[in-house]
Amino acid sequence: MKLYEKTPPTPPEEYVRVDWISLRDYVSEVFRALGVTREHAEITADVLVTADLMGIESHGVQRLKRYTIGIKIGSVNTEAKIEVVKETPTTALIDGGGSLGQVVSYKAMKIAIEKAKANGISVVGVRNSHHFGIAGYYALQAVKENMIGIVMTNSEPLISYTHTIGRNIGTNPIAVGFPTRTPPPILFDAATSIVPIGKIEVYAKQGKKMPLGWALTPDGKLTDNPKEVLEKKGSLLPLGGFGEEFGGHKGSGLALIVDVLCGVLTGANYGKFVKHTTEKEPANVGHFMIVINIDKLSSLDYFLERIEEYKRYIKNLNKISPNVDVWLPGEKAWLTMETRKKIGIPVHRNILREIKEEGESLGVEFKVKIIKETA
Amino acid sequence: MKLYEKTPPTPPEEYVRVDWISLRDYVSEVFRALGVTREHAEITADVLVTADLMGIESHGVQRLKRYTIGIKIGSVNTEAKIEVVKETPTTALIDGGGSLGQVVSYKAMKIAIEKAKANGISVVGVRNSHHFGIAGYYALQAVKENMIGIVMTNSEPLISYTHTIGRNIGTNPIAVGFPTRTPPPILFDAATSIVPIGKIEVYAKQGKKMPLGWALTPDGKLTDNPKEVLEKKGSLLPLGGFGEEFGGHKGSGLALIVDVLCGVLTGANYGKFVKHTTEKEPANVGHFMIVINIDKLSSLDYFLERIEEYKRYIKNLNKISPNVDVWLPGEKAWLTMETRKKIGIPVHRNILREIKEEGESLGVEFKVKIIKETA
Repeated sequence: MKLYEKTPPTPPEEYVRVDWISLRDYVSEVFRALGVTREHAEITADVLVTADLMGIESHGVQRLKRYTIGIKIGSVNTEAKIEVVKETPTTALIDGGGSLGQVVSYKAMKIAIEKAKANGISVVGVRNSHHFGIAGYYALQAVKENMIGIVMTNSEPLISYTHTIGRNIGTNPIAVGFPTRTPPPILFDAATSIVPIGKIEVYAKQGKKMPLGWALTPDGKLTDNPKEVLEKKGSLLPLGGFGEEFGGHKGSGLALIVDVLCGVLTGANYGKFVKHTTEKEPANVGHFMIVINIDKLSSLDYFLERIEEYKRYIKNLNKISPNVDVWLPGEKAWLTMETRKKIGIPVHRNILREIKEEGESLGVEFKVKIIKETA
Repeated sequence: MKLYEKTPPTPPEEYVRVDWISLRDYVSEVFRALGVTREHAEITADVLVTADLMGIESHGVQRLKRYTIGIKIGSVNTEAKIEVVKETPTTALIDGGGSLGQVVSYKAMKIAIEKAKANGISVVGVRNSHHFGIAGYYALQAVKENMIGIVMTNSEPLISYTHTIGRNIGTNPIAVGFPTRTPPPILFDAATSIVPIGKIEVYAKQGKKMPLGWALTPDGKLTDNPKEVLEKKGSLLPLGGFGEEFGGHKGSGLALIVDVLCGVLTGANYGKFVKHTTEKEPANVGHFMIVINIDKLSSLDYFLERIEEYKRYIKNLNKISPNVDVWLPGEKAWLTMETRKKIGIPVHRNILREIKEEGESLGVEFKVKIIKETA
């Protein structure tokens, strides 16, 4: 296997490579020390570490404290019952009771999968949840059952809706997963902003200017200064960018659709009312999932045959330059995961120290296995 | 009512305003003269004229000849049976037999609506169809029943998938419609390219340069010259633009998802294999529809109350400048439709002549009522 990392650790000497299973076990222990059940702790740790495996570090263990703080201040309720408040053979409306978003979503997707297995297609709406990490994780649950998974969530506001200023709508990602006969599966997982806030944090850390067109200052000017977004609370631009000339209204429209399905429809919060995990008020994040049973609609064998054809079609398109690769959605993340399962996950020294201290403060022994002292 | 047109006729003296019902009746007569049944002719005419009403002229009667040529050369089969080849209470796979895409889609959506009414959610896949006009038309069928309609179609290739050159994937639009207590409903309807090819045709006609970043030359250079796209068969860029810096891979990914759902899953063509209506070979376009019964998943009354709140939330966001308006998806199209039902549809003189001649050649009397000789 050729090693590949979507996000190579830069500079390598600031990173340590750790064994992913020991990292997951450790994160799980930290949650257990906070009163989370073993099952729930394992689910949450798996979602976080899967993000690191996939090269989506912004959603990985560097976010551990977001959730531990949420539990400590009581915004995340570890003892809540996750309740199905309305149900038919193909639909379910779930109240997460303020539980960890990962747990609520994992269970919601399990319900959606069972319903789609029996009835061809299902839809599950979730309210009273929290930030659930990477949307793609739950889409892959359906993919593992050879079904199509569609997953959305709304999030705390970061985008300016087209022709407006300020943070007023979430980055509201959409994930769609398709099974394939041979890995990788196709997994589209994208925020409806041009870039995630995490990418702007990276630019700030490196003291670099951003490309003009990613973000606005609080009063609605285009800016290339990451501080205008991070410190002064500027906003992200929707996919398609500023105004309508390059389709910003399409990105805004997608963010709005996700907000309506996840927030308006389910009874969760929407727009600027969605709260961050670390705020005292309940976040009341909403999720929305659809699962499609391929074999009921069409034929699974036929689909798996054709999707392999389609993958070859895309991979063999005429490249714009010999120096680029043509990628299927999710392919980079998949290769990164395979690579990191083998050679370990690069974790920034500061992040490693932070999660170590978090464990120590809770009496959890730091058993993360270091594979290499520099990545 | 304040009159509003999303696409005011420019310059007005090149346009004639016509009564929309007489235009629809005339278009329907033209189809009937070609052997299309009354029911099918009326559906097709209504889809075309609704596009003109909504200010999406690129998909309106100016495209009449696309379909009449398709019928004449036999690529569109007006006598085909539209067949449900596989069915469960929540799913249907439909073979359109090469019929008019509008008819196949209208009927497919009716089936999806019935299934969702009874069972909460439904999914219908369609193969062997043709270009179906505006995706939003079919989403609105579900909206009229107070349900959520999601509609996609693949199309003949026009976009270059990220990091590739040439026309290799369709503009593959996505439409999502939400019912509301008071009009307009929310209707997102967008191609996964930055702009439709029709917009580039308008720039060519006016002898104007395009913004750099919409399109590529056949060998993959950014171009502001419409002729490079239209005459030399350049390509459109996906939403998010060139490369990955502004999220072009997200737009490409959305186009790919639509292609998989409409093409790969249903047995329709995909990518560059999807044909234009006027080509001799069957187009084998695919469509994909999901209908969600709000009242089974959540509560319709509750949803209608909250969606009105949400509309107010969006409309009252802080504007970036006093000179702009903040729009809900579909709002401009709705206001244009209301306006044009009242004052008529502006049709370019050349288009009016073209459709008149098309009717004459088939022995159809031109009964389109002119409301005003200049728009």
